[in-house]
Amino acid sequence: MQNFHIASLDRGLAPAIQARLNSRTKPLGSLGRLEAVALQAALVQQAQRPVLRAPRIAVFAGDHGAARVGVSAYPQAVTAQMVANFLAGGSAINVLAREAGLELSIVDAGVASDIDPALNRSGVEFVVAKTARGTANYLERAAMTAPQCDAAIARGADLVRRWAAAGCNAIGFGEMGIGNTAAASLLTHRLCDAPLDAVTGRGAGLDDAGLERKRALLREASARVGSRKLDARAALREFGGFEIAMMTGAFLAAAQARLLVLVDGFIATSALLAARALAPQVLDYCVFSHRSAEPGHRLQLDHLRAQPLLDLDLRLGEGTGAALAFPVLRAALALMNDMAGFDDAGVSRAA
Amino acid sequence: MQNFHIASLDRGLAPAIQARLNSRTKPLGSLGRLEAVALQAALVQQAQRPVLRAPRIAVFAGDHGAARVGVSAYPQAVTAQMVANFLAGGSAINVLAREAGLELSIVDAGVASDIDPALNRSGVEFVVAKTARGTANYLERAAMTAPQCDAAIARGADLVRRWAAAGCNAIGFGEMGIGNTAAASLLTHRLCDAPLDAVTGRGAGLDDAGLERKRALLREASARVGSRKLDARAALREFGGFEIAMMTGAFLAAAQARLLVLVDGFIATSALLAARALAPQVLDYCVFSHRSAEPGHRLQLDHLRAQPLLDLDLRLGEGTGAALAFPVLRAALALMNDMAGFDDAGVSRAA
Repeated sequence: MQNFHIASLDRGLAPAIQARLNSRTKPLGSLGRLEAVALQAALVQQAQRPVLRAPRIAVFAGDHGAARVGVSAYPQAVTAQMVANFLAGGSAINVLAREAGLELSIVDAGVASDIDPALNRSGVEFVVAKTARGTANYLERAAMTAPQCDAAIARGADLVRRWAAAGCNAIGFGEMGIGNTAAASLLTHRLCDAPLDAVTGRGAGLDDAGLERKRALLREASARVGSRKLDARAALREFGGFEIAMMTGAFLAAAQARLLVLVDGFIATSALLAARALAPQVLDYCVFSHRSAEPGHRLQLDHLRAQPLLDLDLRLGEGTGAALAFPVLRAALALMNDMAGFDDAGVSRAA
Repeated sequence: MQNFHIASLDRGLAPAIQARLNSRTKPLGSLGRLEAVALQAALVQQAQRPVLRAPRIAVFAGDHGAARVGVSAYPQAVTAQMVANFLAGGSAINVLAREAGLELSIVDAGVASDIDPALNRSGVEFVVAKTARGTANYLERAAMTAPQCDAAIARGADLVRRWAAAGCNAIGFGEMGIGNTAAASLLTHRLCDAPLDAVTGRGAGLDDAGLERKRALLREASARVGSRKLDARAALREFGGFEIAMMTGAFLAAAQARLLVLVDGFIATSALLAARALAPQVLDYCVFSHRSAEPGHRLQLDHLRAQPLLDLDLRLGEGTGAALAFPVLRAALALMNDMAGFDDAGVSRAA
């Protein structure tokens, strides 16, 4: 397991950046959350005028052994079908990435079947980085082995380093994986010490009976492991999935490379919980894009004392919340960089 | 006073539009608020595939007689200085309109001094539609005469009809006017029957003593008029301002012309309260863009049972909240129009 040393944000520039924000032609503090995010971006980039370069969404897809025993409203085959849809350009994240001018990468982190690269007609980047064809069923055994877990984390980190080397300085991570809200619930339960039922929701659309069944299965999975405290890697090994472990590595490498990271919803945040357990400074580089309608996400955000930019009742995944937040982030930076100052514009200040 | 008849939204297409949303490749309802706003846009346009054409922000600027007696932290001259800043391209709304690809119009609704059109170096549209050089001081008399009020409403409506005739089908209204949160507080107090102190806030940045003084002055202004019930035009006449009355006419004409209207913050919503009193159907065409940090705005939104798209603690005005919501609206329409359906994409539905 490689070492993920992440530097804390150097806040030395903060007074100068805040002074610049305060001297723009607007009432003091009147841009609210946009000022906070502009300040954070400036500190991440250690620049008075932060800019987004080659911003990207990376969607990690993987299958879950437990999906075959009833934790989702959808059949497992939908993971591969949706990857094909990403490659064809017809999914929500394709549309939102185009709208916001974002590069889009689709990563096969461990889909149960092989995806034909010839399906890629949309020009997105398609990366095959399968650790295995789906995780094991965590009701029976650990979802992955220790080498698989470390490999998935390392592969996620390597990909981000490659994108960063190619010029990307802002990134959001999304996911696709039938059953992965269940894995995220187990991770959140263990890493936040939160009641399992409170962080287990309907996912892609379970009815009341389905939710009860999911909760019973997850209690059983958690009981199999016992009540011993799990560290981040143990929790990932036990409950998966490969797309979540890759995102954990991706978060860590992104912060190490001083990228600004847009955090999507419930599943992405479960990967971030693992990343934070490995290197708490990762949070300095994170902008929380939205609050998902999946109930466990609110609890994760409260646990992290995070205040997301958007609250649109989304529960789609794929990085859609992160993609929607990019225009807000871009607007915040444009305001800081392009607004006139009081003196230049000849505008009087408050009495 | 012209008649503003506005047709209620014909919801006959709603089932077909909802069926189209439900057949996109995503869990049912998982796009949350974006689905609601896409449906509303489709109904406003009576189209299965709504599109934004020549979207615009119009900023109405006007001065307030009461600004000279201490209801604001800023001197009255700032209104004209900020109009010059709009024309030079250095204000927040200039930056956000450019970012979101929006046309921008600056309207002199009644600034106390004349603005030199030669200051316009940014290529925005500058419309001089002064009703007078500022309103009268409502502590002494009505802010405007009845003919002035009707003229301002009519001028706002005429401008919107011109933009609609030129192809605009979506618009947001912003404002600039030192002292206009005070006018908005008085209008909200009278039109929502809300306690005056509860809807009176710090505006552009009053301290505690300034807020107390503002509240005392507004109580005095309201007492001058007495406790008789004021209709929308009477409330506008008594408390102004010209930019607010122009926005009232603009809201009404926009709905009449079947434009989608993005509602900004506290002051824009006070104009909408007057418009709604004149023609309640205006609300069918309104998308509430954000919740302002000005405390009276929350009360207005609750009164209208409105759920805004964004909540970013903004309190800047100028239409900045509306401009920030345009990319969200555009994303919602792109999702509805461009996402693949389950059958086309070969994706299985929920079990």
